[in-house]
Amino acid sequence: MSPTSFARSAAIIAIGSEMLSHLRQDTNSLWLTERLDEVGITVVRKSIVPDDPGAIGDEVSFAARAAPLVLTTGGLGPTADDVTVPAIARRLNLTLVRNQEYLAKMRERFARRGIPMAATNEKQADFIVEARVLENPRGTAPGFWIERDGKEYIILPGVPLEMREIMEERILPALRERAGPSVARRRVLRISGMGESSVEELVTPVYAKWKEHPVTILASPGEVQLHLRVVGEPEETARRLDDMEADFRGVLGARIFSREGEDLAASVGRLLRERGKTLAVAESCTGGMVAKLVTDVPGSSAYFLGSVVSYADAAKREFLAVEERTLREHGAVSAETAEEMARGALERFGADLAVGVTGIAGPDGGTPEKPVGTVWFALARRGASSIRKKREFLGDRLAVRQAASQFALELVRRGIADG
Amino acid sequence: MSPTSFARSAAIIAIGSEMLSHLRQDTNSLWLTERLDEVGITVVRKSIVPDDPGAIGDEVSFAARAAPLVLTTGGLGPTADDVTVPAIARRLNLTLVRNQEYLAKMRERFARRGIPMAATNEKQADFIVEARVLENPRGTAPGFWIERDGKEYIILPGVPLEMREIMEERILPALRERAGPSVARRRVLRISGMGESSVEELVTPVYAKWKEHPVTILASPGEVQLHLRVVGEPEETARRLDDMEADFRGVLGARIFSREGEDLAASVGRLLRERGKTLAVAESCTGGMVAKLVTDVPGSSAYFLGSVVSYADAAKREFLAVEERTLREHGAVSAETAEEMARGALERFGADLAVGVTGIAGPDGGTPEKPVGTVWFALARRGASSIRKKREFLGDRLAVRQAASQFALELVRRGIADG
Repeated sequence: MSPTSFARSAAIIAIGSEMLSHLRQDTNSLWLTERLDEVGITVVRKSIVPDDPGAIGDEVSFAARAAPLVLTTGGLGPTADDVTVPAIARRLNLTLVRNQEYLAKMRERFARRGIPMAATNEKQADFIVEARVLENPRGTAPGFWIERDGKEYIILPGVPLEMREIMEERILPALRERAGPSVARRRVLRISGMGESSVEELVTPVYAKWKEHPVTILASPGEVQLHLRVVGEPEETARRLDDMEADFRGVLGARIFSREGEDLAASVGRLLRERGKTLAVAESCTGGMVAKLVTDVPGSSAYFLGSVVSYADAAKREFLAVEERTLREHGAVSAETAEEMARGALERFGADLAVGVTGIAGPDGGTPEKPVGTVWFALARRGASSIRKKREFLGDRLAVRQAASQFALELVRRGIADG
Repeated sequence: MSPTSFARSAAIIAIGSEMLSHLRQDTNSLWLTERLDEVGITVVRKSIVPDDPGAIGDEVSFAARAAPLVLTTGGLGPTADDVTVPAIARRLNLTLVRNQEYLAKMRERFARRGIPMAATNEKQADFIVEARVLENPRGTAPGFWIERDGKEYIILPGVPLEMREIMEERILPALRERAGPSVARRRVLRISGMGESSVEELVTPVYAKWKEHPVTILASPGEVQLHLRVVGEPEETARRLDDMEADFRGVLGARIFSREGEDLAASVGRLLRERGKTLAVAESCTGGMVAKLVTDVPGSSAYFLGSVVSYADAAKREFLAVEERTLREHGAVSAETAEEMARGALERFGADLAVGVTGIAGPDGGTPEKPVGTVWFALARRGASSIRKKREFLGDRLAVRQAASQFALELVRRGIADG
């Protein structure tokens, strides 16, 4: 491989008729896009074509006009509809030869597992003579790396595990070397407890300062993410990212709960573990979602004691000792009920912290005073005062529940940080 | 529109540089694929290109060689990088004229909302003279339907809500009419309580009988789906689907919990509501996921009383009256504990049915006798005997928790059906 010029753009082709149905999505290309970006290569087009030799050939030729590097995934299997290799070989005038040595190895592999090798498997030993063969340690079908008329073609299997290993082991190191000292590095700052527009308002001056490194802002219910990306020489990019992060922290402060991919529940879990504290939850409208998020984290049994999902009012009284009178005078969705729920959970679970959540997730149950989306929160802490918060979330039932669950976790996070 | 021949295949182009990043996925094409299939049109290629006039033009020409109908989504907005309409007009030699009447309407619309209209918005009034204009009731940018050199091009906005409304209101009815008496109809049979291979074994003779109508089988933790699809004259397809379903029911029986898209929690909710029964849950390893699934369903407060997520053993005793001795002699993951949890929830919530779930979700906590994935379930019923079940699920923490939550719901479903 000695390409005349370093390819800075690529096209990705996903091959497989099943990915043209409404039931399947090509996800390999997202992973490939991220990895290629890290070695300075931008994806300029993506496409999905059926397992048809003509369509594959046309697509490969067309893609090579759009970018000097073309990657394909899929169609390397043993069945009759896997035709990627012969289709590309024919289009690029390459020679296919059955590799007897590899065939023998395949047979041996099957024999070791006690399975007879089907005749259709044999074609996986058809190698493109002009290509560099990319061994596939996790599967039978090898990949190929071809240079032809100043363009490069990388043919990969569609099985994500196999595709990723070949990329990581064989392709990315070579592309990284070619890229020279320049790399792309990313950092994701995750923010909770404020909406997208509030974040944007605060960070506008920081955007302006770093305008040569565009920042992407992404929002989901209860969370905002800032995606930082810097290209350059490795040490310089790391320093640059640190400087950018410092500036964002300057305006966002402790609202940033994570910079390494850790989600809010994991972040809360780490803090609880570090301080040796335990957590309990009392939920109503979130219906178990807070507990579910907390227990999604492996090892959460070290700090999580449990939750009472008191959907019915009777359950709020029975399990959490919420007073009949509180419910009657203030209603189930109120600061008072949220606080009694949190206090009840704190006492009965014997926890250090407990969060209570009660609200109206919709679609029904809203009133002019308490519209759908109204949620009351309370955080009870052993040996410290309680905190009560009200929020009105927008969106449908799912969005309200997600945003409320995230906010409950955010309240716990702040409570630990304070305590 | 009087196309010379009815297009039976289509190509979809998603336009937008942001969809070429690793953070975004084109999902419009999945929806379009399903809808087009219903009017007899098969998607033969999909692609994603940046907001670049040259790339858009090349792609449209190339796609039109692969299929007689080309649909594009995106790039109709008011900003400088939205260039879809002029790019396609130039490539197909079409005339763009600013529609003064539409421009006035746009201005009026902005005025009514009290917002000044930016000058960049004006280009959204540039109409392709040769095209049928597709009004966009939910947005500013209209779509276009063009016939040129025996090919058809449908230009749609990228905002899903806008794109879908234009398709539903203006395009699909016309395509349906052209399709004549032939339609494609689908039905999804959803199965719980058995794995993919067990389902496949049972349905193989049914597959064979209906081999002219291929059935797709899809599996996710705790659920298997059979996607039936029949093409033909409407009444005939409906009858055919009924016959196919009857055959699948013949071998799968009550394992089929839904045929209309209703998920397991909704199906359980409907049964509880129909019979006027209430449900409570006692969870350990699922950590709130069962309650979360139950309360994802709008209106679940009519039958769901709540859940105790007793992650810590102390919580199992305190809230569910599980005996100290049971935990000591049989362990937290045992038939006995599951049953006491279910009985405790039944009594304390005052429910008609209660399900208990206790197991080892991993990654830690497994033993040779009780490996990761071991889960005990119990269903307690008012005035009927309890049911205990054990399952060993494969997969990671998430998969075990999902499969266990689904199985808990399945147990409730069977309990209601029996009772």
